[in-house]
Amino acid sequence: MNKTRLEAFSDGVIAIIITIMVLELKVPHGDNWADLRLLGPVFLSYVLSFANVGVYWNNHHHMLHAVKRVNGSVLWANMHLLFWLSLMPFTTGWMGENHFGSLPVAVYAFDLLMCAVAYTILQAQIIKLQGKASVLAQAVGSDYKGKTSVVAYALSIPMALLGYSWLAGALLIAIALMWFIPDRRIENKLSNE
Amino acid sequence: MNKTRLEAFSDGVIAIIITIMVLELKVPHGDNWADLRLLGPVFLSYVLSFANVGVYWNNHHHMLHAVKRVNGSVLWANMHLLFWLSLMPFTTGWMGENHFGSLPVAVYAFDLLMCAVAYTILQAQIIKLQGKASVLAQAVGSDYKGKTSVVAYALSIPMALLGYSWLAGALLIAIALMWFIPDRRIENKLSNE
Amino acid sequence: MNKTRLEAFSDGVIAIIITIMVLELKVPHGDNWADLRLLGPVFLSYVLSFANVGVYWNNHHHMLHAVKRVNGSVLWANMHLLFWLSLMPFTTGWMGENHFGSLPVAVYAFDLLMCAVAYTILQAQIIKLQGKASVLAQAVGSDYKGKTSVVAYALSIPMALLGYSWLAGALLIAIALMWFIPDRRIENKLSNE
Amino acid sequence: MNKTRLEAFSDGVIAIIITIMVLELKVPHGDNWADLRLLGPVFLSYVLSFANVGVYWNNHHHMLHAVKRVNGSVLWANMHLLFWLSLMPFTTGWMGENHFGSLPVAVYAFDLLMCAVAYTILQAQIIKLQGKASVLAQAVGSDYKGKTSVVAYALSIPMALLGYSWLAGALLIAIALMWFIPDRRIENKLSNE
Repeated sequence: MNKTRLEAFSDGVIAIIITIMVLELKVPHGDNWADLRLLGPVFLSYVLSFANVGVYWNNHHHMLHAVKRVNGSVLWANMHLLFWLSLMPFTTGWMGENHFGSLPVAVYAFDLLMCAVAYTILQAQIIKLQGKASVLAQAVGSDYKGKTSVVAYALSIPMALLGYSWLAGALLIAIALMWFIPDRRIENKLSNE
Repeated sequence: MNKTRLEAFSDGVIAIIITIMVLELKVPHGDNWADLRLLGPVFLSYVLSFANVGVYWNNHHHMLHAVKRVNGSVLWANMHLLFWLSLMPFTTGWMGENHFGSLPVAVYAFDLLMCAVAYTILQAQIIKLQGKASVLAQAVGSDYKGKTSVVAYALSIPMALLGYSWLAGALLIAIALMWFIPDRRIENKLSNE
Repeated sequence: MNKTRLEAFSDGVIAIIITIMVLELKVPHGDNWADLRLLGPVFLSYVLSFANVGVYWNNHHHMLHAVKRVNGSVLWANMHLLFWLSLMPFTTGWMGENHFGSLPVAVYAFDLLMCAVAYTILQAQIIKLQGKASVLAQAVGSDYKGKTSVVAYALSIPMALLGYSWLAGALLIAIALMWFIPDRRIENKLSNE
Repeated sequence: MNKTRLEAFSDGVIAIIITIMVLELKVPHGDNWADLRLLGPVFLSYVLSFANVGVYWNNHHHMLHAVKRVNGSVLWANMHLLFWLSLMPFTTGWMGENHFGSLPVAVYAFDLLMCAVAYTILQAQIIKLQGKASVLAQAVGSDYKGKTSVVAYALSIPMALLGYSWLAGALLIAIALMWFIPDRRIENKLSNE
C-alpha cells in the first residue's frame, strides 16, 4: 500500500486545522485599539497553536519522507494523531478566550500531551513496519526531544490546575520553541547515505 | 479517465468534513469543570462521527486502491456518497446539542444509513466497471460487514423514534467499533497476488 | 507550465466550497419535527448548490483532463471562476434562510450566471491555447448546454425580481438536472481516439 | 527533500484561507436591497482579499515551479508566509465590518506588509539554496514589483492611521491591480531556456 493518499489526507486535515483556528479570532464590533487589545490572549493562543501544528506538519513531513510503504496499523495510528490535532481549534479558542485560565491551560496541555503520545505511537508503528535498521529508526535514535515534550506537557497539567497557569503556558511556549528547530536528525541521516 | 483527481477531491471533502465538525464544539464562555462537562454529549457525538468518517476514508482509500480507472457513473456515485457524508457535521451537532434525543439520533442514524447505501452503490459501480473477476469483487465477497451495518442503521431509526435513543446510540457505536478493524479483505487479496 | 497545481488548488477550493455550505444549515435548538421542518428551504437550497458545485467540479475535471499545459491567462480565468463559485455558500444561505424570496433567488441566479460566464471564458482560454483542432475544441462543439444555461440563468433573474421566484427556482433546478448527466461529449471524443 | 508536499500543504492552506473568508459575508436576516447594500464594504473587502490571496497563490505557484528541492529553512519561511496569510480572513472581516475605518485599514495593510516581507524572505531562502545563477534568481532580478509593494504597504499604514483610510484603501487596491498581471518574468525566463 503506498503512502500518497495518507500524506494527501493528512496534509488536508492539518491544513484545515491550522487555518480554521483563525475563526476563533472573532472580528470585534468596535474599530479602535481597545477592541484589538482585548484579542491579545486569543491572538497569543493562536500563534502558539499555529507554531505547534506547524511543527507537527513539519515533523510528519520529515517522518513520512523516510517511509516507503504503510499498512493498516499506520493508517489508524495516523488517524489517532489527527483526532487529537483536530481538537486544537477548540482547546486553543477556549484557552485564549479565558485569558490562559487554570483549567483551559490544563486542557490545552492535555491535548498537546495526547498529540505527542499519538505521534510517538505512529512513529513506533512505522519503525515496527520498517525494521530497527531503517533510516527512520536510526534517525529517531533515543528521541530525547519527543520524551522531553511528553514530560513537559504532563508536568504543565498539574502546574496549571494548581494555579500556576502562566508558568505552565511559558513551559508550553518553551517546548514549541525547542521544536521550532526542524528535525535535522532525519534530514542528516538521509543526506549522509 | 484516471482516478487521481477523484481521490484528491474525495480526500479534500472528507478532510474538511472531519475537521469542521469540531466547530460544533462551541468554546464555552466559563472556564471551569461545569462548563466543560456540559459539552460531554457534544464531544461524545464528535468522537463517534470522527470514527465513522475516518472509517469511510479508510475504506474508500482501500477500495480506490484496487481500482485502475473510473467513469462518469463512478464519479456521480462518489459525489452521492460525499453528499451524505457532508451532512455529518449537521447531524452530529444536532445529536450532540440535544443530548442524544429521540429524533436527532434517528436523523443521525438515517444519515449513516444513506452513507452506507451510497457506499454500496459506489462499490457496485466500480465492480460493474472492473468485472466480477476483479480483485475488488473477490475481496468484497459477500460483504457481510456492509450488510450488517445497513441493517443495524435501519433498525436504530425506529428504535430511536420509539424512545430507546441511548440504545440506538449504543448500536451505532457498536457498528463503528466493528468497522474500526480496517478492511483487511482487500489488503489480503492484494498481498496474496 | 504544467496543470497539476492548478487542478490541486481548484480541487481544494471547490471541496471547501461544497463542504462549508453545510455550515449554513444551522443546528436548531429544539429537537422535534417542527424544528427540523423549519430547515426545509435551507436544506433544499443546500441540495441544489451541492448539485451545482458538484457539476462544476465534474465538468472542470473533464475539461482539464483534455488539457496538456496551462498559461497565465488560464490561471486567471480559473481564479475568476473560483471567485464566483466561492460566493455560493453566501448566496445559497441567503436564498434558503429567506425561503426562496424574490431578491435572494435573483442574486443566487446572478451568481450562477457569473459562474457559467466564467466557465465559458476559461473554456475559451484553454481552446485558444490548444488550438481549434484540439480534442477539447471538438468535444465542446457548439456547447448548446452551456448556452442554454446562460440564457436560463439570465431569464430567471427578472423572473425572480418580478415575483415569480418559485418559478425561477424551478428553472434553476431544471438546469441543474440537465447538467447532472456528465459531459459525455469529451469522454466520448477521448475514448474514440 | 522534494517539494511535492510543500506545494500540496501550501495549496491546501491557501485554498482554505481564500474560501473561509466568505464566511465573514454574514447572511443578512432581511431579504431586500437595503440588507444587501449594507454588505457593500464587506463585499469590497472580500474581493480585495480574494485578489490578494489569489496573487500570492499564483506567484507562489510560479516561484515553486522554478524550484527543484527544498530544505528546512525553506519549509519554515513558507510556514511564516502562511501564518500572515492565515490572518487575512480576520483582517479582511474587520476592515469590511467597520467600513474601511482608520485602524482596521492600518491593520489590514500591516498584514499585507508582513505577507510581502515573508514572501521576500521565502524567495531569498530559495535563491540562497539554488544559487545566484539559478533561473529564479535571474527571473526575479531587481524585484521592483516586490519592493514597490512593500513601500506602498508601509506607507498606507500611517496614511490610514492619520485618517486618510479610503486613500490608503485605494493604494492597496492599486497594488493588487499591479500584481494582477501574472509574474511573466519567471514564465519568460523558463520558456526562453
